[in-house]
Amino acid sequence: MDECYMRRALQLASCGREHAAPNPMVGAVVVCDGRIVGEGFHRQCGGPHAEVNAIASVRRPGLLERSTLYVTLEPCAHYGKTPPCAKLIVEKHIPRVVVGCRDSFEKVDGKGISMLRQAGVEVTVGVLEKECQELNRQFFTFHQKKRPYVTLKWAESADGMVDFLRSTLADGAAAQLSDATNLALVHRLRSRADAILVGGRTALLDNPSLTTRRWPGRSPQRVVIDTHGNLSADLRLFPARVYLTATDARPDYERLSGTTVCRIARETSGTLPLHTILSDLAQVGVQSLLVEGGPAIHQAFLEQRLWDEMRVEHSPLRLGGGVAAALPFGAVVVARENIGGHVVEILRPGCG
Amino acid sequence: MDECYMRRALQLASCGREHAAPNPMVGAVVVCDGRIVGEGFHRQCGGPHAEVNAIASVRRPGLLERSTLYVTLEPCAHYGKTPPCAKLIVEKHIPRVVVGCRDSFEKVDGKGISMLRQAGVEVTVGVLEKECQELNRQFFTFHQKKRPYVTLKWAESADGMVDFLRSTLADGAAAQLSDATNLALVHRLRSRADAILVGGRTALLDNPSLTTRRWPGRSPQRVVIDTHGNLSADLRLFPARVYLTATDARPDYERLSGTTVCRIARETSGTLPLHTILSDLAQVGVQSLLVEGGPAIHQAFLEQRLWDEMRVEHSPLRLGGGVAAALPFGAVVVARENIGGHVVEILRPGCG
Repeated sequence: MDECYMRRALQLASCGREHAAPNPMVGAVVVCDGRIVGEGFHRQCGGPHAEVNAIASVRRPGLLERSTLYVTLEPCAHYGKTPPCAKLIVEKHIPRVVVGCRDSFEKVDGKGISMLRQAGVEVTVGVLEKECQELNRQFFTFHQKKRPYVTLKWAESADGMVDFLRSTLADGAAAQLSDATNLALVHRLRSRADAILVGGRTALLDNPSLTTRRWPGRSPQRVVIDTHGNLSADLRLFPARVYLTATDARPDYERLSGTTVCRIARETSGTLPLHTILSDLAQVGVQSLLVEGGPAIHQAFLEQRLWDEMRVEHSPLRLGGGVAAALPFGAVVVARENIGGHVVEILRPGCG
Repeated sequence: MDECYMRRALQLASCGREHAAPNPMVGAVVVCDGRIVGEGFHRQCGGPHAEVNAIASVRRPGLLERSTLYVTLEPCAHYGKTPPCAKLIVEKHIPRVVVGCRDSFEKVDGKGISMLRQAGVEVTVGVLEKECQELNRQFFTFHQKKRPYVTLKWAESADGMVDFLRSTLADGAAAQLSDATNLALVHRLRSRADAILVGGRTALLDNPSLTTRRWPGRSPQRVVIDTHGNLSADLRLFPARVYLTATDARPDYERLSGTTVCRIARETSGTLPLHTILSDLAQVGVQSLLVEGGPAIHQAFLEQRLWDEMRVEHSPLRLGGGVAAALPFGAVVVARENIGGHVVEILRPGCG
């Protein structure tokens, strides 16, 4: 039965998808004598936590003293924007708490469970643990690895190309490998990311605006890696956060309002310092990053094993040559869907 | 560890979403000495089952004799379009099989598990059972209840209306409560349903075509309940399957090519004979039905408890009066998402 109520708590948690960030999604259920008597979820960052909402929803508060509270994530033990939930649970004399998974956020990290147990509350941890971790995998990746959750995304032709060969803008427009439906889905992906990253070559050749035009929702912060210092301030992606590896360059976008230029050195091996870039993004609060390309950038993330998810769209078009897509080695297909003749694969890192 | 491999089998199963129907989605994994040595899923109705694909993918067939096969659904025991999988497993001397959930399809229904056990195979049943059942809930509903999986769908205004008050076509166009993104998502819902149903009033007033124009994919079969026998043959939804309760009517769509007219009696209480309609649809192979309205039709499905899922879109618009939406009593919100200011709720029947 614990699993049954935790499943309900997971449903509730996911209702907070829109506004919980940067907090995790959390759901809670109060069960008394085999009946659900209270439910809640974390609706909005800064607002009450799931446990508070679930407890407040119980019409006869006297029931709490013989109820079990199910919560997808360990209750907090610290004063943040709201008082600690573990304290509230103790004050309400709730005798038993079932926790989906521990919160690896350093201010919690077992302290909520300890506080409850020290007060004599019976605590069970790890019911539907994988599901509870999966729900907040972006949040957990961010706190455990101190870097954003990284999603790589590209569309490739039936012969494995992402574009025609183009060396200058005069070579014409980029290959159109996606279609309207898939572009809308990519814009949904954008609307769910805190930031979006492209390389300087993509910025120059495609001049993308990287906004969320085809799906309602906010546009993510734009990030570009500029290895040559040759981007111009009139590109559509500005204002942006620029990681500039050409140390002596004085690019004309440096004084753009809203644009931050971070000068970083390439590693001696010549590889892109992605670890440094991701650490810096984490420090400015970027929990999730969508990497849109091009293939050299994707390959660098793959080779340095700094990625968590991949969306590859396989277009039925053939280009007959051009710029080859990155090789997704070490990746396992976890979902596949045919959307209007375009096969979209979602991949995750394999164990190997 | 069983759960870990079953989770992988579930991922694989879902890759068959497009073409498995009317068969269920099934995934399978072969594990030898703690390593995955084979994987497969049921790609297409009529093609090999998941177990066959997984077994065929093992590069060194000798490993099978000391492997465990994980499969999300009970292996079949009958000759259908392909030979029984249970037989293949026995022939390959696979010593252990882990089954996600039993197949309630009457030609299997425990017989696959029995066949394996009688041949000396060790069988574990019920690993991630809920997840395996959830994946194929349309298939299971169809076989267990002998009726399609019913999804109710509507959009309502901030004040709970689905339309202006209109008594004739001359009253003007219907209220536009949805937006482009949500219309596209509704068309995706249509593309995943075998059939789509509306009432005669909606057919007449809105003259919908009920096709999948805003999402790639096939259009579902169109079904209309005609209580007055007053539909005209030039409505856009024809050809369709019509359930006609006006017994003495001779409507002009009766001779339309591709249109089937089923004459059914209203129950003596006056309620719509939805049970009869759903049984008939099941007999012509409709596994999933999307009910688009109007509210009287929705209310009938709700009152007769003949529904499995609901998608309600809450528009920010106010109509200030009009046709009220159905009351979703007995429904529990299992997911909620804000899509461009429109809050979309997914509901399921509660236990009560």
